[in-house]
Amino acid sequence: MAKAARGHGLAAEIVGIGRDATRLEAARRDGALDRVTTDLAAGIADADLVLLAPPVGVIAAMLEDVARVCGAQTIVTDVGSTKAAIVRTAERLGRTRQLRFVGSHPMAGSEKSGYGEARADLFRGATVVVTPTESSDPTAVKTVSQLWERLGAGRIVTLDPEAHDRAAAAISHLPHVVAMALVDAVDRFEPAALDIAARGFRDTTRIAASDPVMWEEIFLANREALGQSLIAFREALAELERLVAAGDSAGVRATIARIKARREALR
Amino acid sequence: MAKAARGHGLAAEIVGIGRDATRLEAARRDGALDRVTTDLAAGIADADLVLLAPPVGVIAAMLEDVARVCGAQTIVTDVGSTKAAIVRTAERLGRTRQLRFVGSHPMAGSEKSGYGEARADLFRGATVVVTPTESSDPTAVKTVSQLWERLGAGRIVTLDPEAHDRAAAAISHLPHVVAMALVDAVDRFEPAALDIAARGFRDTTRIAASDPVMWEEIFLANREALGQSLIAFREALAELERLVAAGDSAGVRATIARIKARREALR
Repeated sequence: MAKAARGHGLAAEIVGIGRDATRLEAARRDGALDRVTTDLAAGIADADLVLLAPPVGVIAAMLEDVARVCGAQTIVTDVGSTKAAIVRTAERLGRTRQLRFVGSHPMAGSEKSGYGEARADLFRGATVVVTPTESSDPTAVKTVSQLWERLGAGRIVTLDPEAHDRAAAAISHLPHVVAMALVDAVDRFEPAALDIAARGFRDTTRIAASDPVMWEEIFLANREALGQSLIAFREALAELERLVAAGDSAGVRATIARIKARREALR
Repeated sequence: MAKAARGHGLAAEIVGIGRDATRLEAARRDGALDRVTTDLAAGIADADLVLLAPPVGVIAAMLEDVARVCGAQTIVTDVGSTKAAIVRTAERLGRTRQLRFVGSHPMAGSEKSGYGEARADLFRGATVVVTPTESSDPTAVKTVSQLWERLGAGRIVTLDPEAHDRAAAAISHLPHVVAMALVDAVDRFEPAALDIAARGFRDTTRIAASDPVMWEEIFLANREALGQSLIAFREALAELERLVAAGDSAGVRATIARIKARREALR
C-alpha cells in the first residue's frame, strides 16, 4: 500500500508503524515510507488517513488503540480479508467516540509476502470491496473509495460486512483451503507424483504457498462462513464423484460443460 | 503434435487422420498437415510413426484397427492421459501380431483445445512420461523418447502404466475434479461472489474450463485411481477443517507451513 500510494503521489508523508522497526527498513530505504516507528500514537498523530494491514486477527483489537489516539478528522480503513468482526468492532467503538472507519478489502495480492514482493501497480484494475454500514461517515466512505480509485482499482464494490465474509469465504478462503489440501493429499499419498506435476497442478495450487500466519488468522476469523462454503464444496465434489463412479458418461459431460461455461463467464 | 513436429522439422510428411476431415482443415491450411484422410488404413500406410491422440476412451479400441493396418516397422505411440488400459491392450495385441507400441503422456497442454490453440513450442521444457513394459521393443522405446526430446521436452520420465495412472490421478485428474467442484460450489451456493473473484480464484480454477468430452473420458478411464486420490484429498481437507473448526491456531499454522514448504519445493 505504501509503495502504491507513493508511486501514485497520493501522500505528502507516509509513516510506517510496526512492532519491529527493522522489518520496515526495506520500505523506508526504498522511499515508500518517509519514516518508521513502533509507537502507534506517534505514528498516527496528524495523519489524514490510517491504513491497518496487520494479520487479520489483530485488526479488531488494534482498532481500540487507534480510536484512542487518532484525531477527529482522521479516516481509518484496513485491508483485512474478513470484515464482520472488524467493522462491528469499529461500530461499537464509534458509539462512544469519534471513529471514522470504513473497511476495505482489495481483491489483489499473491501467495508472496514481504516488502520485496511489493508492487506500486498491485491494485491496477483490481476489484476492491468496501464495507460501509448505516453508521459510517459519508466523507469517510467517499475518501476511502477515492483512495482505491486513485491507486488504480478497476472497480469498487460495496458489500455489507457479513455478505463480504461469505463471498470472501467462497472465492478466496475456500480455494486456499482446497489448494492446500490438494498439495497435502498428493504429498502424503502419492509424493512421487509431484515430480511430474505440470502447469495445471502448479496453477491450481499456487495459493497453497501462502503465508501461514496470515492465513491461519483468516481461516479462524472467518471459520463459520468457511465451514458453510466447505459444505457446499463437498456436495459439489460428491456429485461429480458419484457420476464418475457410476460411469455416467452423459452426466459427467453435462456437469463439466455446465461448469466450464460458468468458469468462462467470469469477467 | 503435428504443428510441433512440423515446427521442429521432424517429419517429411505428416498425415492427419480423423472421423471428420473438415476438422483437420485448419491444420492442413496452416501447413502442419500435408494431407488429411478419414481412412485409417490409407493414412497409416507407409508411416514410420503413428501418434494416437483422440479422447482417451477411444485409444484402446483404436489400437486394434491400427495394429491390423500398420507395417512391421511402424512405431506407434499415443498421448492419452491414462496409460494402463491402453498399454495392456497393446501388449495383448502384440502377442499375436507385430505392434511396436510405447505409451506416452506429455505433461503439457492447457484447458484450451482445438487447432487454434496449437503451439509448436508446447512441449518445450515439458516433462513427458513414457510407459514401456518388459515386452516393449527397445527400438520403439528409444524412438519415442527421442521424438519427445526433439520436440523440446525437458525431461523424459519412465513409469510403468499403473504407476503413471496413480501419479496422473494425483497431480492432474484430482486437481481437475477439485477445480470443477470449486467453481460449481461457488456458482450454486454463493454465485454473487464470482463477481469479485480475483487471480487466486482464477488460477485455482483455470482447469475447470477444460473440454467436457476429453475430461469425461479421462475421469472414467482412471476412475479407480481417481477415487483413491479423492479419499486422500478428503482426509487432508478434513484434517485442515478440523484444526480450523477447533480454533487450533498453532496446528493450522504448522500445517500451512508444512504445505507451503512442499509446494515451494516443486521443481
